[in-house]
Amino acid sequence: MTLPSATPELYASYVTHMQQIADIKNALAVLQWDQETYLPPKGAAFRSRQMATLSETAHRLFTAPSVGSLLTELAGRQDLQGAQRTNVLLTLEDFTKQNKFSSSFIRSMSEAVSRSFHDWLAARKENRFGLFEQSLDALIGLKRQEADIIGYAAHPYDALLDEFEKGSTVQMLDGVFAGIRQPLKDLLDRIGGRPQVDDSFLRQFYPRQQQWDFGMDMIGRLGFDFEAGRQDISEHPFTTSFGCQDVRITTRVDQQDFGYMLWSCIHETGHALYEQGLPAGEYGLPSGEYASLSIHESQSRLWENHVGRSLPFWKYHFPRLQAVFPGQLGGISTEAFYRGINRVAPTLIRTEADELTYHFHVMVRYELEKLLMEGSLSTSDIPGCWRELYQRYLGLEPPDDRSGCLQDVHWSHGSFGYFPTYSLGSFYAAQFFQVAEYQRPEIQKEIPLGHSDKLLGWLRENIHRSGRLLKSEDLCLRATGQPLEMKYFLGYILDKYTNIYNL
Amino acid sequence: MTLPSATPELYASYVTHMQQIADIKNALAVLQWDQETYLPPKGAAFRSRQMATLSETAHRLFTAPSVGSLLTELAGRQDLQGAQRTNVLLTLEDFTKQNKFSSSFIRSMSEAVSRSFHDWLAARKENRFGLFEQSLDALIGLKRQEADIIGYAAHPYDALLDEFEKGSTVQMLDGVFAGIRQPLKDLLDRIGGRPQVDDSFLRQFYPRQQQWDFGMDMIGRLGFDFEAGRQDISEHPFTTSFGCQDVRITTRVDQQDFGYMLWSCIHETGHALYEQGLPAGEYGLPSGEYASLSIHESQSRLWENHVGRSLPFWKYHFPRLQAVFPGQLGGISTEAFYRGINRVAPTLIRTEADELTYHFHVMVRYELEKLLMEGSLSTSDIPGCWRELYQRYLGLEPPDDRSGCLQDVHWSHGSFGYFPTYSLGSFYAAQFFQVAEYQRPEIQKEIPLGHSDKLLGWLRENIHRSGRLLKSEDLCLRATGQPLEMKYFLGYILDKYTNIYNL
Repeated sequence: MTLPSATPELYASYVTHMQQIADIKNALAVLQWDQETYLPPKGAAFRSRQMATLSETAHRLFTAPSVGSLLTELAGRQDLQGAQRTNVLLTLEDFTKQNKFSSSFIRSMSEAVSRSFHDWLAARKENRFGLFEQSLDALIGLKRQEADIIGYAAHPYDALLDEFEKGSTVQMLDGVFAGIRQPLKDLLDRIGGRPQVDDSFLRQFYPRQQQWDFGMDMIGRLGFDFEAGRQDISEHPFTTSFGCQDVRITTRVDQQDFGYMLWSCIHETGHALYEQGLPAGEYGLPSGEYASLSIHESQSRLWENHVGRSLPFWKYHFPRLQAVFPGQLGGISTEAFYRGINRVAPTLIRTEADELTYHFHVMVRYELEKLLMEGSLSTSDIPGCWRELYQRYLGLEPPDDRSGCLQDVHWSHGSFGYFPTYSLGSFYAAQFFQVAEYQRPEIQKEIPLGHSDKLLGWLRENIHRSGRLLKSEDLCLRATGQPLEMKYFLGYILDKYTNIYNL
Repeated sequence: MTLPSATPELYASYVTHMQQIADIKNALAVLQWDQETYLPPKGAAFRSRQMATLSETAHRLFTAPSVGSLLTELAGRQDLQGAQRTNVLLTLEDFTKQNKFSSSFIRSMSEAVSRSFHDWLAARKENRFGLFEQSLDALIGLKRQEADIIGYAAHPYDALLDEFEKGSTVQMLDGVFAGIRQPLKDLLDRIGGRPQVDDSFLRQFYPRQQQWDFGMDMIGRLGFDFEAGRQDISEHPFTTSFGCQDVRITTRVDQQDFGYMLWSCIHETGHALYEQGLPAGEYGLPSGEYASLSIHESQSRLWENHVGRSLPFWKYHFPRLQAVFPGQLGGISTEAFYRGINRVAPTLIRTEADELTYHFHVMVRYELEKLLMEGSLSTSDIPGCWRELYQRYLGLEPPDDRSGCLQDVHWSHGSFGYFPTYSLGSFYAAQFFQVAEYQRPEIQKEIPLGHSDKLLGWLRENIHRSGRLLKSEDLCLRATGQPLEMKYFLGYILDKYTNIYNL
């Protein structure tokens, strides 16, 4: 491959190559989306091999030696500046990391994940961790190898954390969690001493179609562009993107529980607004990608919790909701509704947890992953350790594996280091929202009027537009003038529940 | 690339490579399906580049020199026998043909098609052929180049015909069409001398959901496996497959015209039964692919016309249909319904034509394509020649381009040589159905009882199972003991309309 001599042409050929890889990755995302929404059951086997081939093709295109030469050459050009330089340096970093893995290691990992996912499904169905243990153990072994291949300074888990959230380490997360553990525990205890709020009105019969219509309308009101995306139904809600002008979200309707669908719609809309807000002209480049998982989660949590579970928001929307469900909600006040949708209670299932206890679920997983990666916990001891940690953090013990250590799909996918980004997302969300409200007082005025354009404008400008050019912490610093500070989240949560529970 | 020495290993590596290419082509088919069914409008630009990348990737993987070496080596192995040998020889033939095209020619063609499709859309919207003429002319120039690159013995059009239907030539098709032109014209004249049948009952209000439900139920009754496929809504009905265990069909509902949806469902089900009947174990190989476009069309036409527009079929189903639409169909007899759904009348639009006049629409296109490819008709003369041929064959003249030469998408896609396969499909359908009924008299008994398993069994055994191992004509010979004979189609059509119109 002869490289063009002028930097602009060289950069253009880098862009072309990256966009072709993006095309294949986005095609893979379409296949995954279809798998979760419309795939007929017998189609699974062919689909799985089609996805594997696309994934291998993208990996092969990205790790080709010619890509390395191109990137190295570009990185050395002094006349490559600004966002273009950052794009190239970030891509070179990814390239170097990806090239650490031999194709035989990648194949072993991919096979181990397939086996492990399959066994997890069976184990969950049978409610027996034992069926998952062996393949999980093999996968953990490979993840520890992966950490060694990537390399780390202090803790093997750091190497894996960094893959999901660049720059995050055990030291950093230990600090973060230590800072919230006791305050949240104390708050939970105080709430436990007060009369519980009533949320039984959420668990009546809410017909599917009316829920769906209300949710679709809400998504549009929050700013989701239905010309550049859509919502469908899937077993578990998720957001995916095939380019910022085609962003798909999904939800699930439970006719016996109103809470499930609507907040999933708002949560996924938060993710989707981020994806739709990425710059279209930067397709395929770091400057056109989301910054990190925690920043992604900060967007979903911000809309779900700071907007969608707030009193000002429901001041406007609750009468509309009552008009749709007069039988179910006619006799409920806006304040009672607000309290009900913010009920705090320790539970066993992470995805059903409230904003406070949620972080204990994450801490359990974080502690376990840390121990597993440093080799001080054996795979067979996971269920016991899980029970112990739930007892310690939430005062509950799962009666079985299904409501215990088999509840999440992540480990079966080999995603060790993912969970902490959920908590980080909440913490960033609190900081972003409070600073946005402080910088633009109009936001406080628009929400009780059923609008959120000013808020979305702030997010577009401060978070969305810069893609992956800044790391989470630098993005936070630029947007809020400070690094991540736990006082925002703690202040928010204390204030909210003091009010709701009359503490 | 060092080739394995033993033939079985060599064949295995051929299979692996072909299956990877199939994975990418099937992924492309998923993206196309999504484009027609669920794509949000703004997603079109990214989608189009994603599809182009997949298409280029598949082409590059297939035409790599190492593939040529592998195929040549395998073709020379004397111990490669039977279906395996045929697979390799067919693939080598495809490889040789694909490799005749330089990548610059492929790029030019792909760009010309994009431009041409875009201009066709605009021209159709504005109802002005002039907006399409220039890019169509460029595309026709490229198609003539393509014919030269492929090579041909007698007529340049032969090279293009062969791409859609192996072995078909101008000489062969001239013969086929000459054999039906006069008999069909005579029949049409005789029908024109009789009182027209009434089909006005089809154009009442038929609510969407009831149409959809009846159609979905019908698809299942005909044998479509909903575990291995699904039906969705699109602007134009089509069938696509991502492997024989994931076959997707689409339809469109017109609430003012009952005829539209149900027969589109049956037609696409015919295509889908074929795809679902291909051998799963032959994924990615010629032995796992459909034989040809005409054979594909024979399956859709067989179910749509020979089953779905027959009196025995409606003897069973019409009372069921009346029960769903008592207001619309309560006063109609089964015989009147049967006559109505088989009404013959010259019209301007191919896709709305009846079984008889349909072939005149095809002949018009065939004649035009032949003239264009031999260079004796200039692009600017298409509208005039179109009007002249419609006048000659159907006694009608289109009042504008939209109902004339702009009605079909095919030319804008560069598909010259495609239309004749529609007629061949009808002719094969007639022959297959009559021979099947003769060989298995149970078929005549099962249809009035609402069943068609015996018929499907015959098709599975005689048509579906052998994939692309046999050419259309050889498949026909094996299945029916004869080459394609026009007497089947002519006999069927004469018999049908003699009865309906009391000729």
